Amino acid sequence: MSIKIDLNCDMGESFGMYKMGLDEEVIKYISSANIACGFHAGDPMWMRRTVQMAEEHGVAVGAHPSFPDLAGFGRRNMAVTPEEARNDIVYQIGALQAFTKSKKLQHVKPHGGMYNRAVNDESLAQAICEAVLEVDPEMVLVALAGSRCVAVAEEMGVRVAREIFADRALNADGTLVSRSQQGSVLHDRAEVVKRSLRMVIEGKATAITGETIEVKADSLCIHGDTPGAVEMARSLNEELTAAGVEIVPVWKLV
Amino acid sequence: MSIKIDLNCDMGESFGMYKMGLDEEVIKYISSANIACGFHAGDPMWMRRTVQMAEEHGVAVGAHPSFPDLAGFGRRNMAVTPEEARNDIVYQIGALQAFTKSKKLQHVKPHGGMYNRAVNDESLAQAICEAVLEVDPEMVLVALAGSRCVAVAEEMGVRVAREIFADRALNADGTLVSRSQQGSVLHDRAEVVKRSLRMVIEGKATAITGETIEVKADSLCIHGDTPGAVEMARSLNEELTAAGVEIVPVWKLV
Amino acid sequence: MSIKIDLNCDMGESFGMYKMGLDEEVIKYISSANIACGFHAGDPMWMRRTVQMAEEHGVAVGAHPSFPDLAGFGRRNMAVTPEEARNDIVYQIGALQAFTKSKKLQHVKPHGGMYNRAVNDESLAQAICEAVLEVDPEMVLVALAGSRCVAVAEEMGVRVAREIFADRALNADGTLVSRSQQGSVLHDRAEVVKRSLRMVIEGKATAITGETIEVKADSLCIHGDTPGAVEMARSLNEELTAAGVEIVPVWKLV
Amino acid sequence: MSIKIDLNCDMGESFGMYKMGLDEEVIKYISSANIACGFHAGDPMWMRRTVQMAEEHGVAVGAHPSFPDLAGFGRRNMAVTPEEARNDIVYQIGALQAFTKSKKLQHVKPHGGMYNRAVNDESLAQAICEAVLEVDPEMVLVALAGSRCVAVAEEMGVRVAREIFADRALNADGTLVSRSQQGSVLHDRAEVVKRSLRMVIEGKATAITGETIEVKADSLCIHGDTPGAVEMARSLNEELTAAGVEIVPVWKLV
Repeated sequence: MSIKIDLNCDMGESFGMYKMGLDEEVIKYISSANIACGFHAGDPMWMRRTVQMAEEHGVAVGAHPSFPDLAGFGRRNMAVTPEEARNDIVYQIGALQAFTKSKKLQHVKPHGGMYNRAVNDESLAQAICEAVLEVDPEMVLVALAGSRCVAVAEEMGVRVAREIFADRALNADGTLVSRSQQGSVLHDRAEVVKRSLRMVIEGKATAITGETIEVKADSLCIHGDTPGAVEMARSLNEELTAAGVEIVPVWKLV
Repeated sequence: MSIKIDLNCDMGESFGMYKMGLDEEVIKYISSANIACGFHAGDPMWMRRTVQMAEEHGVAVGAHPSFPDLAGFGRRNMAVTPEEARNDIVYQIGALQAFTKSKKLQHVKPHGGMYNRAVNDESLAQAICEAVLEVDPEMVLVALAGSRCVAVAEEMGVRVAREIFADRALNADGTLVSRSQQGSVLHDRAEVVKRSLRMVIEGKATAITGETIEVKADSLCIHGDTPGAVEMARSLNEELTAAGVEIVPVWKLV
Repeated sequence: MSIKIDLNCDMGESFGMYKMGLDEEVIKYISSANIACGFHAGDPMWMRRTVQMAEEHGVAVGAHPSFPDLAGFGRRNMAVTPEEARNDIVYQIGALQAFTKSKKLQHVKPHGGMYNRAVNDESLAQAICEAVLEVDPEMVLVALAGSRCVAVAEEMGVRVAREIFADRALNADGTLVSRSQQGSVLHDRAEVVKRSLRMVIEGKATAITGETIEVKADSLCIHGDTPGAVEMARSLNEELTAAGVEIVPVWKLV
Repeated sequence: MSIKIDLNCDMGESFGMYKMGLDEEVIKYISSANIACGFHAGDPMWMRRTVQMAEEHGVAVGAHPSFPDLAGFGRRNMAVTPEEARNDIVYQIGALQAFTKSKKLQHVKPHGGMYNRAVNDESLAQAICEAVLEVDPEMVLVALAGSRCVAVAEEMGVRVAREIFADRALNADGTLVSRSQQGSVLHDRAEVVKRSLRMVIEGKATAITGETIEVKADSLCIHGDTPGAVEMARSLNEELTAAGVEIVPVWKLV
């Protein structure tokens, strides 16, 4: 049986007159799109366009909910309570769902500050899981591989996909090296591709400290708004495929 | 067979720390709640609470979408295009839907500036109808009795309920007397009740100019945020019931 | 020479259709108004009205800037950078200033989450001070008595007023007892008044743990949106005056 | 005496992570910058950067206030009352002013929907003028040449600059050809430059209907966010200068 992986990318992060990302190119190379829902980026017009584009390309649609922080692009941590987070997420999932043909989403992947806080914050992770279960228990939660959020989801019976990042360095414990640290983001395409193939096929990576560590992943995140994003996406897709890896939407994997 | 009418009221128009309306009292006397969706009022916390309250009281839940104008409480007309309006409405319906147990709404009633513009603006009325049909064609659109919006809905095959207002004076052609005109809003409870009973039971009203006009209505709108709102709601409910009128959610009528 | 104190109160925290606070009553009993600037509450209409009301009552006007969090009323901590905070504050001070007759403000008092974080967060305190110095170095910064924020302001040459709260319990080190703790807020009017007089006149208070501690204050904060706020404000004003304390705007004290 | 003209351009219309316009290039060729104030675009971070950049280049700073419509980039007309508009403008002027070294602005130029409505809407034009007079009567209002707004400003004693557009076609009465009409925007650089020189030097233009009409202008608007914007700005600056026209900030002209 072949190895399978999902390729996901944040999409629909334009807002009004403001264009962000190369969605119409990157969409060709991914299997799952995380679509912004208006709290950190996106608006009803862009949600419509992005959902439609994903559906036309056969890419599975998921919600990319955020803390309510348009000015900060949802990257700043906010002291929202679990109850507030849960309701904010339910709201955003519902809003996006309404634009799809099937009125169903494949997955939910929290954005930026919310995603990062859920790595360790159990009560936030629970709130996220409750939101998923409440709206549609068939939806998959995409969370950082090895995070508390994955563990919480498993305990709560949420379908959860373990996510890794194509271009981020890892600590020896499998967590992401903080962006504030030197070497946290990898820029060389060949290196990113090679590293990604190793993680996906062998389940191994070299940590920033040199150790070889184990990596178990269901979905590989690529970026759509960086220089070279399109080439990176294409290379990853092509090289994975060439190596016999099957790229499939995440609902087929978890 | 008894006469039937729906009693609807705008609800969930609080925002964050700001409380508006006497929802927890008025809810006892109505059959349909139009719940704000965050564009003119309401937020995910209040949507949660209000949906829950409506469900506990057996009151049917509907969306109350608006132009995006929190500062103006959605009362100001905005030159949004039909496409923008449609997408804004789909977004808001979806967001509210996600908070309900059934994941379905009974109805959609546009708010304030959007409601008023749809009375005569055919392309906006069409956009509203398209949004309803797209998300769930079983939903009922609540529109001003006698408006172009009702006609458009009928042409497009949208289930539509004709709405009248308990406390608003009418012109000879059945339209609402503008709020800027003297006598446009009736304040005397006994008069409002008497007038409402006549509209519902006899299908007749006296216009501000003195003529007797015909009124055909499926839903009677009452207010929840004016002085005396609770007493008004109770009186209307009790007097209608005493007169043999059955108060039912609007999906049973159209 | 008589003892002097400033009485300050948060004002202008209404928003659009939403009314908050009993400003038009409480204004009679205070010497300084902290006016919301649109980031947690307030809007240009309410800023206009509130500034005008303060000017008519001879109450000194100050800005009450916040993190950008309308939905959370500015009470939630947000991971804004010092640079973001500084710019957000400059913006808000400028916006309010433009509504005053003199085009000058007496003071700046950060709101909610920003105020609380500045108690211990030196880099935020510096950012606040830089904003004050940049827009108008004659403005007074109002900060919690005994906080790091006061120390930072003194080091940076900012005129700073030490603030105490009429109705909040104190720890033995002079800091506020957290709102999450039992007994953190005092509700009995007579007790609040007696305690306030002692803090102002004797410079002493009894901590929640029983010790007598020293309190040095330039401004006493009262609330305008709690039940009994008007009576509390009046009592504090009358009892302080009766005890020979002079109530003066804070610029006369620091 | 040489002919003089102001060259103005909208600037600072980025927002958070979203970059718009080639401000750092175009700034070299203009004499006045209209800086967004957060209601349609811009935020405190971008206002800081843009003001600083303008000051470094010796370009005069003005406010570019808008209706409150971030989602619509301020282009949609909104039924704000004159009082609401006035207060929204005072707020935005004040906010921007606080970022300047001098704490003074050279000018105010309303944006998008507000600018367009003020062409004919006298009560809005009055509200704009009142805002200017209230905050600083030395500020210049930039308004469409030949508009009611210019006439209202003159009546009210507001310093007003008549604005023309480098790339917009004109009707026979001197008003702008609506963007919805074929040929309303000129794209050929040589033509735009030639036409602009003729308007500035000879005071004449050819209307879309063929007539030669008179044009009296104090300021020529160029765009900073269109393809070729930088080349257009440079060409206009260079050709005007070569023809002996002096490019000066608008306060020197009115």
